[in-house]
Amino acid sequence: MTGACKDLDDAGYWSIECWGGATYDACIRYLNEDPWERLRTFKSLMPKTPLQMLLRGQNLLGYRHYQDEVVERFCQKSAENGIGVFRIFDALNDLRNLKTSVNAVKKAGAHAQGTISYTVSPIHTTALFVDQARRLQDMGVDSICIKDMAALIKPQAAFDLVKGIKEACGADLRVHIHVHATTGVTLVSLMKAVEAGVDCVDTAISTMSLGPGHNPTESFIEMLDGTGYTTKIDVEKIHRVKDHFVSVLGRYSEFLSKVTGVETEIFKSQIPGGMLSNMESQLRQQGAGDRMKEVLEEIPLVRKDTGYVPLVTPSSQIVGTQAVLNVLMGRYKVLTGEFADLMLGYYGAGPAEKNPEIVKMAHEHAKKEPITCRPADLLMPEWNKLRSEALALAGCNGTDEDVLTYAMFPQVAPKFFTERHEGPRNLGKDPETGVSETHPAEGHQGAITGPITYTVTLSGRQHKVMVTPYQ
Amino acid sequence: MTGACKDLDDAGYWSIECWGGATYDACIRYLNEDPWERLRTFKSLMPKTPLQMLLRGQNLLGYRHYQDEVVERFCQKSAENGIGVFRIFDALNDLRNLKTSVNAVKKAGAHAQGTISYTVSPIHTTALFVDQARRLQDMGVDSICIKDMAALIKPQAAFDLVKGIKEACGADLRVHIHVHATTGVTLVSLMKAVEAGVDCVDTAISTMSLGPGHNPTESFIEMLDGTGYTTKIDVEKIHRVKDHFVSVLGRYSEFLSKVTGVETEIFKSQIPGGMLSNMESQLRQQGAGDRMKEVLEEIPLVRKDTGYVPLVTPSSQIVGTQAVLNVLMGRYKVLTGEFADLMLGYYGAGPAEKNPEIVKMAHEHAKKEPITCRPADLLMPEWNKLRSEALALAGCNGTDEDVLTYAMFPQVAPKFFTERHEGPRNLGKDPETGVSETHPAEGHQGAITGPITYTVTLSGRQHKVMVTPYQ
Repeated sequence: MTGACKDLDDAGYWSIECWGGATYDACIRYLNEDPWERLRTFKSLMPKTPLQMLLRGQNLLGYRHYQDEVVERFCQKSAENGIGVFRIFDALNDLRNLKTSVNAVKKAGAHAQGTISYTVSPIHTTALFVDQARRLQDMGVDSICIKDMAALIKPQAAFDLVKGIKEACGADLRVHIHVHATTGVTLVSLMKAVEAGVDCVDTAISTMSLGPGHNPTESFIEMLDGTGYTTKIDVEKIHRVKDHFVSVLGRYSEFLSKVTGVETEIFKSQIPGGMLSNMESQLRQQGAGDRMKEVLEEIPLVRKDTGYVPLVTPSSQIVGTQAVLNVLMGRYKVLTGEFADLMLGYYGAGPAEKNPEIVKMAHEHAKKEPITCRPADLLMPEWNKLRSEALALAGCNGTDEDVLTYAMFPQVAPKFFTERHEGPRNLGKDPETGVSETHPAEGHQGAITGPITYTVTLSGRQHKVMVTPYQ
Repeated sequence: MTGACKDLDDAGYWSIECWGGATYDACIRYLNEDPWERLRTFKSLMPKTPLQMLLRGQNLLGYRHYQDEVVERFCQKSAENGIGVFRIFDALNDLRNLKTSVNAVKKAGAHAQGTISYTVSPIHTTALFVDQARRLQDMGVDSICIKDMAALIKPQAAFDLVKGIKEACGADLRVHIHVHATTGVTLVSLMKAVEAGVDCVDTAISTMSLGPGHNPTESFIEMLDGTGYTTKIDVEKIHRVKDHFVSVLGRYSEFLSKVTGVETEIFKSQIPGGMLSNMESQLRQQGAGDRMKEVLEEIPLVRKDTGYVPLVTPSSQIVGTQAVLNVLMGRYKVLTGEFADLMLGYYGAGPAEKNPEIVKMAHEHAKKEPITCRPADLLMPEWNKLRSEALALAGCNGTDEDVLTYAMFPQVAPKFFTERHEGPRNLGKDPETGVSETHPAEGHQGAITGPITYTVTLSGRQHKVMVTPYQ
């Protein structure tokens, strides 16, 4: 990515999202790369443009609630290392789960963007979302983001929501919109959001756009031609960014999404693209790959029982896994711990009443009382404990950053700390030879470790045959 | 395709485009299938919905101008065999090249749609296209089509043009818009065309949409939700159509476009996607695959010399080939016969003044005088001659349909006529085994002609190896 940074920084973006979300996890789990070092590298290469991250509120980048001090330290350290804009969301749209991080971000002098996790359900009206925006404004956020992770927002809905927020919160409060391209309609939704007065939209360079990704930056810019609306983007610069990624993308083809068309059935199932593929692999592991259709019909029912939670990390995984279990074992015969926690309020308050019978089952199953308070209020201070545990790990460098890595990924951090000194692993492969880029010359001395290409002549015709040793 | 026809017919489309364009050529050249028989099959399977074809005006489906009687007979026979809607265009937007076919279609009692070949150039203003629509209306067309083969029409331009035509021609004259998806912006253009009052848009079932194809039908329908606009399409029916094509598409994967993303550089080069790949292969054949960039820069210059002809069959091929020659041999050192004809008016009148120096060169090269009349006016009656030539061919069945096949494809028809009795070839292949579907059991007795799959065990690991004999 470093080769594109100068042009990206010069292109005129309002911000560049380049950290948080799943990138931190991927760094330590697969790439043996320190995410904090990555962030500092980005900031040094893109000094002019604010760097942006996605933050799961009280969950940070992990999958549980953290006590406020951990949240505060994470926000402080992220700002110190280079993040200028924090997009903060909660899967349940429970604003109590955003409050600590919003305050911490503002204290750190950075931009706190309050986020609406957009979804579609009988209770999710424009008015409900506009009210959420108002409450975010009262909380003191610097801007609002409409986050549509499943590509469900249709053009008219986008227009109405942006317009509604602008009218309720005033023209001065910035409104951003983040959509995926999965269903094929969201570039039109961006057009309508622009007409309704949106201040900023999320796009991706065309090379890595569409399918489950975002709409192409270049198309968005061309789309506005003649409308009276314009971006501040330097088109020449982003064409160079595109050329850069075209030239390297072949090395990472195994990691690219195979989905390139549109999936309009999402409008019926309301399931984000990533969640679908997760469930398919869960079903296959259970030897039930043929029961996907039943699961797709079960999900809306489970979701209704939860009081229509939006489906986004972690609620998408929780609802999806429970739906799989319901199909395989019988409805609610087995409850996951996470699903019980969701029903009992341990992820926060949902948007509507939950099915009381299932809450009762969760109560009996988990032997926990339902709660209505902010989940993090139940947590005891944990920073010092996390710190001592982290510092006891081999390879931990003693910084708060390392403690945060351990706090968020306790299973992955120990291995990462011990291997970090080996440096980042590049998982790219030469598209011609399939040779990995990390330490290509390495291997047992004298043994053949790389692939060998033979020319085999058969019936007078030459064939290139590549033989890779089985290891 | 036959398996989808009932649902397509029941879905509620205004028309189904399923014939003409390059389909006729593909039938006789690759599929050993009588295109007229295909048309009758479609009509018997889709009796309710008007079938539509694309007609290149005086060129019919061929690459030269035909004398009026040939054009009239083609239109008559197409209507008789099942075409209800004729979309008639001319690459140069020379309306004299549409007149005969428009009149013949109306005489046959079918719907004559007059087409604007949309392009972008310094002279192609909204006013120019609106004037063309007015002149088509005066000619007596039943509706107007804006045909954007290169996906160049941006949302505001689409809005302005539809609005302009509606204002100039009256609300009662139907306006259709046909866009490709190549640049990624045209679903937004369809939204704007709808807002401007367009009566009908072209889409494709999602399975075969996007890239150089059309926008997905399902996305278009979802896009309109809540806008007050709606289609007459039965969504359940088209989901079944989609499922059908999902189930068969794997057999034809080698014929699918490899382009699935967006190509916004088209806005700069204004070159339709299909033209690009043609030129790339021309250059590679000349061992000059690395000179594409120069050709891309040459095309706009050649196009300017022609007086900014739209780039669509056949002008796209003519301009593209000349640009390749200019790069390889020096500018206008060699002129193709077709390019000379274009410069001398033998394809019709272009939208603007041509470069007089190049016209002079074409005159000297081709030893032909420039003309300003309608090109077909120079043609002598040719039906009887074509008829005797066709009837002399082995396998010709003596029908006017066969004469038309010969007239349009004199190089391909003779082989097709002799092989027609063998029946259509299905070029699909089993996606697992690669076995072709046409006569899979055929072959020399005793000899191995199909591929054989061996299981090869290497270092304890099983590999599936398919060996196909070299023929």
